[in-house]
Amino acid sequence: MVGGGQGAFIGGVHRYASRLDGRWELVAGALSSNAQRAADSAAELGIAPDRSYANFNAMAVAEAARADGIDAVSIVTPNHMHAAPTIAFLNAGISVICDKPLCASLDEAAEIATAIKASRAHFILTHNYTGYPLMRQARQMIARGDLGKIRVVQAEYAQDWLSGALETEGNKQAVWRTDPAKSGGGGAIGDIGTHALNLLTFVTGLDATALSADLHSFGKGRQVDDNAHIMLRLDGGAKAMLWASQVAVGNENGLRLRIYGDKGGFEWGQENPNAMTFTPLGAPKQIITRGGAGLGGGAGDWTRIPPGHPEGYLEGFATIYNDAADLIGGKGDGALLPGIDAGLQGMWFIDACIRSSRDGGAWVSR
Amino acid sequence: MVGGGQGAFIGGVHRYASRLDGRWELVAGALSSNAQRAADSAAELGIAPDRSYANFNAMAVAEAARADGIDAVSIVTPNHMHAAPTIAFLNAGISVICDKPLCASLDEAAEIATAIKASRAHFILTHNYTGYPLMRQARQMIARGDLGKIRVVQAEYAQDWLSGALETEGNKQAVWRTDPAKSGGGGAIGDIGTHALNLLTFVTGLDATALSADLHSFGKGRQVDDNAHIMLRLDGGAKAMLWASQVAVGNENGLRLRIYGDKGGFEWGQENPNAMTFTPLGAPKQIITRGGAGLGGGAGDWTRIPPGHPEGYLEGFATIYNDAADLIGGKGDGALLPGIDAGLQGMWFIDACIRSSRDGGAWVSR
Amino acid sequence: MVGGGQGAFIGGVHRYASRLDGRWELVAGALSSNAQRAADSAAELGIAPDRSYANFNAMAVAEAARADGIDAVSIVTPNHMHAAPTIAFLNAGISVICDKPLCASLDEAAEIATAIKASRAHFILTHNYTGYPLMRQARQMIARGDLGKIRVVQAEYAQDWLSGALETEGNKQAVWRTDPAKSGGGGAIGDIGTHALNLLTFVTGLDATALSADLHSFGKGRQVDDNAHIMLRLDGGAKAMLWASQVAVGNENGLRLRIYGDKGGFEWGQENPNAMTFTPLGAPKQIITRGGAGLGGGAGDWTRIPPGHPEGYLEGFATIYNDAADLIGGKGDGALLPGIDAGLQGMWFIDACIRSSRDGGAWVSR
Amino acid sequence: MVGGGQGAFIGGVHRYASRLDGRWELVAGALSSNAQRAADSAAELGIAPDRSYANFNAMAVAEAARADGIDAVSIVTPNHMHAAPTIAFLNAGISVICDKPLCASLDEAAEIATAIKASRAHFILTHNYTGYPLMRQARQMIARGDLGKIRVVQAEYAQDWLSGALETEGNKQAVWRTDPAKSGGGGAIGDIGTHALNLLTFVTGLDATALSADLHSFGKGRQVDDNAHIMLRLDGGAKAMLWASQVAVGNENGLRLRIYGDKGGFEWGQENPNAMTFTPLGAPKQIITRGGAGLGGGAGDWTRIPPGHPEGYLEGFATIYNDAADLIGGKGDGALLPGIDAGLQGMWFIDACIRSSRDGGAWVSR
Repeated sequence: MVGGGQGAFIGGVHRYASRLDGRWELVAGALSSNAQRAADSAAELGIAPDRSYANFNAMAVAEAARADGIDAVSIVTPNHMHAAPTIAFLNAGISVICDKPLCASLDEAAEIATAIKASRAHFILTHNYTGYPLMRQARQMIARGDLGKIRVVQAEYAQDWLSGALETEGNKQAVWRTDPAKSGGGGAIGDIGTHALNLLTFVTGLDATALSADLHSFGKGRQVDDNAHIMLRLDGGAKAMLWASQVAVGNENGLRLRIYGDKGGFEWGQENPNAMTFTPLGAPKQIITRGGAGLGGGAGDWTRIPPGHPEGYLEGFATIYNDAADLIGGKGDGALLPGIDAGLQGMWFIDACIRSSRDGGAWVSR
Repeated sequence: MVGGGQGAFIGGVHRYASRLDGRWELVAGALSSNAQRAADSAAELGIAPDRSYANFNAMAVAEAARADGIDAVSIVTPNHMHAAPTIAFLNAGISVICDKPLCASLDEAAEIATAIKASRAHFILTHNYTGYPLMRQARQMIARGDLGKIRVVQAEYAQDWLSGALETEGNKQAVWRTDPAKSGGGGAIGDIGTHALNLLTFVTGLDATALSADLHSFGKGRQVDDNAHIMLRLDGGAKAMLWASQVAVGNENGLRLRIYGDKGGFEWGQENPNAMTFTPLGAPKQIITRGGAGLGGGAGDWTRIPPGHPEGYLEGFATIYNDAADLIGGKGDGALLPGIDAGLQGMWFIDACIRSSRDGGAWVSR
Repeated sequence: MVGGGQGAFIGGVHRYASRLDGRWELVAGALSSNAQRAADSAAELGIAPDRSYANFNAMAVAEAARADGIDAVSIVTPNHMHAAPTIAFLNAGISVICDKPLCASLDEAAEIATAIKASRAHFILTHNYTGYPLMRQARQMIARGDLGKIRVVQAEYAQDWLSGALETEGNKQAVWRTDPAKSGGGGAIGDIGTHALNLLTFVTGLDATALSADLHSFGKGRQVDDNAHIMLRLDGGAKAMLWASQVAVGNENGLRLRIYGDKGGFEWGQENPNAMTFTPLGAPKQIITRGGAGLGGGAGDWTRIPPGHPEGYLEGFATIYNDAADLIGGKGDGALLPGIDAGLQGMWFIDACIRSSRDGGAWVSR
Repeated sequence: MVGGGQGAFIGGVHRYASRLDGRWELVAGALSSNAQRAADSAAELGIAPDRSYANFNAMAVAEAARADGIDAVSIVTPNHMHAAPTIAFLNAGISVICDKPLCASLDEAAEIATAIKASRAHFILTHNYTGYPLMRQARQMIARGDLGKIRVVQAEYAQDWLSGALETEGNKQAVWRTDPAKSGGGGAIGDIGTHALNLLTFVTGLDATALSADLHSFGKGRQVDDNAHIMLRLDGGAKAMLWASQVAVGNENGLRLRIYGDKGGFEWGQENPNAMTFTPLGAPKQIITRGGAGLGGGAGDWTRIPPGHPEGYLEGFATIYNDAADLIGGKGDGALLPGIDAGLQGMWFIDACIRSSRDGGAWVSR
């Protein structure tokens, strides 16, 4: 693991998720750029001192040289510190599981893409919401035509944690996420908007072809967007709206996806990820539960517990790690795993949003 | 009543609503342009034969001349038949309660505005959703500062009744509502989008200052929009999204309003109009019910039954009629009643949507 | 109308409900036992002075003698004042629409039954919840076998308005409802428990054959039950639980009904009466809306407005009045109207609850 | 681990839960009474052949003798196979984490209690629902008086998986759970009713003092109850209803708890364990989320991820294992862990239900 030392947030989530299925063991790390914190964090996590490294370059070299070197590295640093370690490990032949968004600029993104092409190792980006069983089932159902031709998609990810001025109160997460030098320019759009878009594409199979955006920072002096209103056009003529906000008071992690085709509609929200509604045109709305009655395979293929027991965020996250273990272990083709394409899409998204907004909402095509 | 003969929809709703509080009696009508249907409908409704008129002009003249002439007329015809009768009755000194949207063109709208100015009678537009007690309470709470300065508004009105091609199957409502000559050019935007916008303004007190729209007709050969994606800018710097759709499978009458300020947030939907959530910043979300505990006056001022007994659409509608009875009877100032300003706003909205959409989503200012 | 003068509650609800469909007009009343209040109330409601009576006996005699005498009387007095006027009007040949529960004792109930048998007039008891369109649809669906053989029913009616000691604070409703001399002995069981039971029977078609109860008064010094826990056995072997409470903090009017058969299950609650879930065994749960897609006739037969527009309590109430107009007008057979049988069942229920509870929860058979 | 070999259910859940926090490693097992299945299962789970035992006695002896012997054993066999291994391991000085209910008879329960008293090791019963953060917060809030004196509790655990005749179709879980010889006599009451009761007591701090029950088997030929209606009396005068059913079509794992005191009320359901409503008397209902705004410590003390990300069943389960690791490791006092008292309560509950039901619902005191 690179990053994820004491005081970090997402590193811990990766560790929980990686443990759940018993297929990963954390044995090495460059957990912090601060040497003392790196050592302390490693000790706390049971990493042997000789495998706690001062920096990611040293780690990549040393681990590649060991007979029992790591199978993969998790990169859980802030956005501007994704590209360099990703490339270093890929060059060393070690697979990479990287937190989203991909990196901090389109240039970095291109470099990563090149490194992936040149490496024998794999690259996985943790758009973890695609691990929710019902999102995988929705994807299946759309692919087999249950919704007909997709017409309209309403995607949103609403939070409220930046309604105040947390970045001025020493909150470590708020500080780097609102610092364009570290976040890469996007605020809400990068942090959560990329998740909403990735999920939209994962489920519908439709890429965005153009967008029109209206970004705004309501936080006083805030340098990145904290509210984003976006209209999208998708492959095949579908229309979408995407709303990402970090100032919508009363929303904790309100990721919601509503999809309407000419034969039916879906509605799902992360607050209760274990249920989704499906309305076939001209019939009553159905509540589809994770692995519930009358659904055949579907969500049950990616679930660990019976329907009615709510499955959580961690489990979805763990499914990504599990799929990654398959892929890296030579089993399966990783078809469901977000990879470089998802990363490139996200980077385009951020850049296009900023430009469209700056240009009075002009349509930016891809 | 003008319009509302056999086979019509909204006329019946007006009659229910007008009866509920016992303050109106239906005594005269020009219920259909078809003479036989007009007479039959009048008989069915207990209107005396001598007060069932062949056309609205005859009715306006005759009723104005009677000592026991009508206090007000309800105009419940298709959109393109709003202006002429409205003006005729106003000119005759009879108050008008007119269904929305105001009329079929900006020119007609201007003529109506002129007639109102010249008349001693009143004009009321039935944006009936403003009659919901909780919407009136939300307006009160925002006005007194409970949400602080408004930042973001998400408004939507989603239906699915035009997912198929109902207008080709003889459905009377679908036929005129998708005929630009009768609807006035707007499809979903006029029929339901104006409701969403009106409600947004009613509750927040903020008018729209500019918008960017993406309209589309998914119905084959359909001449008016059946899906509208719109970004709005509101007075004072707030941003809004408005979605109106008649092809969102699984939505019957999904009018929803979410409002976020720097001190709190509201969420409400018409499916369950008797509850609204209110989240003060930094505190748990509250479920506010119509006249429920701990709220002081508020919604209880406009309610007929105790909290917990769900109040319906008809009751909200009846509140408009009740307020209109007050206004016309010389009691109160009609401050909560939608009138010509709301009508003009709606007409602008329709026109601006069409233009922005045609111009690649360009911002159209008011 | 008998009762329902100034300061009363349910009288106003009856008046709203009776007006909605335009088939009733309030023309006479004995609105209060206090002469001044009766006169004032009558004036306020537009009742002619010569048809505002000092007592119900005078009213019954006078109205029966008039050529334009009333078609029916609404009796909306406290429970102990139901029997005498009901019998007086029936004896005078005038139909009676009486609020529930039937009366204050089994003796009174028997006298009413006798009077009904001897009279040419009709008797209707306003168990208004049976007027909800989805409850009528549920009844239809069960009758045609959609749930198979009924096994388990969970009925409840939870309120919280008596959590404190309202009856000591001058609340008129609380005073008479907690006074055994006026309420007839039952507290929550009579006031709301009878509603839950009536609805259970109306929907399932199954009468209760035996019960075991645990009643309690949590209010200090309160003489009637404010919480009732009851186990029931139904015709044909089904088992039921019924909970009625007026001290369940957070419940306004939480009437809920859940029914499970060997082929499917229903769940409905009054808080959102416009939706009901139906789960066919082995298939996903469906959300059935009032008149919604794919249901054929059903709820649509008793509804005034399209699905998605929430219909309210008043409309359900008005359906009873409407049905009563049919019955009294000689149209239809009143098959859906609660009558004397429902009243007798309710009286048995109250008495049996009290006895079972007093006897340590012993089973009391009917 | 004892039990949990191929084809079992709850063993897998224990393994997921034990892995989540990285504090347990599965190193030994007697996974099946069938030697081949035991060996195969062990191999699959990475247990060394020499630590895969033919039976629990051999395992207890051998592991106790090893320097690196296990810290604890998980017992995940059917109910009738809980007592013997529990006692064997306790006698060997090895701590036991046992699935509920405690065992198959009151006699066995007493023997286990004796063994615990004589052993230096710990005993933990996995009433896992007490690990849900909001249930721990509810307990805290009740303990500090937020609900005042508890009056009424409505507890239920409704499933539908035994609506048909699964036990005749070869379903392994259904076979042993409906076999009185293996389940211990109780059906729904043991399998899920004990969970509901345990949670009720955990949260309110009130033990049941008496009950009245009506059990029934709707499944043809089924020898244990599949529906249980129970009225309870709790310490201090509170009244409760408990409903456990395995034939309630449309319920997957509907564990719900509603608690009403003289100052407020709580409502929670496992379907969405991340939210709970709290209504202070005379104030609006609040939606309390896991670690959400304005709550101080509370649920946040037992949570791994931020509010809004739904936490699941597994995480609650893992909290028990985590607490157990503390307790066994000498840290903390295990105050929140269900132990022998909870087990004894459950056994009483089963026995009392059967007896009360057999005796016409007579009150059975504890």
